[in-house]
Amino acid sequence: MTEQIDVDFGANGLVPAVAQDADSKDVLMVAYVSPEALEATRETGYAHYYSRSRDELWKKGASSGHLQEIQEVRVDCDADTLLYLVDQEGGACHTGHESCFYRTVDGEAVGETVFDPDDVYE
Amino acid sequence: MTEQIDVDFGANGLVPAVAQDADSKDVLMVAYVSPEALEATRETGYAHYYSRSRDELWKKGASSGHLQEIQEVRVDCDADTLLYLVDQEGGACHTGHESCFYRTVDGEAVGETVFDPDDVYE
Repeated sequence: MTEQIDVDFGANGLVPAVAQDADSKDVLMVAYVSPEALEATRETGYAHYYSRSRDELWKKGASSGHLQEIQEVRVDCDADTLLYLVDQEGGACHTGHESCFYRTVDGEAVGETVFDPDDVYE
Repeated sequence: MTEQIDVDFGANGLVPAVAQDADSKDVLMVAYVSPEALEATRETGYAHYYSRSRDELWKKGASSGHLQEIQEVRVDCDADTLLYLVDQEGGACHTGHESCFYRTVDGEAVGETVFDPDDVYE
């Protein structure tokens, strides 16, 4: 018997979500999720986030085609952080890398480039 | 030639950090990091965070022994989120699970228990 977890969206109505590639297990990105974004993610099967800069619901890949098909949504022990396990179309990062975490903090390049951003973003 | 990345700690002086097991690639937890916590992490080779509830620098595992030895610290494209690749001693979660993400949002148990919290926390 399982019961849906009550996600704690806190004072600002957002929780961080980690997107992880379901196959390679690479961590792809971290973004924020509103209650509406979580609902859209669960209803459509594609990752949705909330853009704090644009102040709007955001379907990942809507403009680039680099959609994230959801395999599973997990929640942490405090129910205030999400983990999206996804099949990533193309790359997650607007720089053309598979993952947004393509550098060490020392500036060493560790990530793979999977597309040319000039071909994807106008 | 590489150059250290200037992490953007933003208005509240904290960035989220994802801890990922360097071997299994499981996402273990998400917590917050202050400039001091990042410095302590890099200097000691063990993951440090900033506890918002206790309002203090926090060495992960200091009381439980469940330390996270750092293999690599990555930063995302916007330089406002960190990824700690770690060797996790014991389990990351205070519930006894290896990972804090041991449930789906539907309440299904998906994570492994690796210790009994009653044995670890007094």
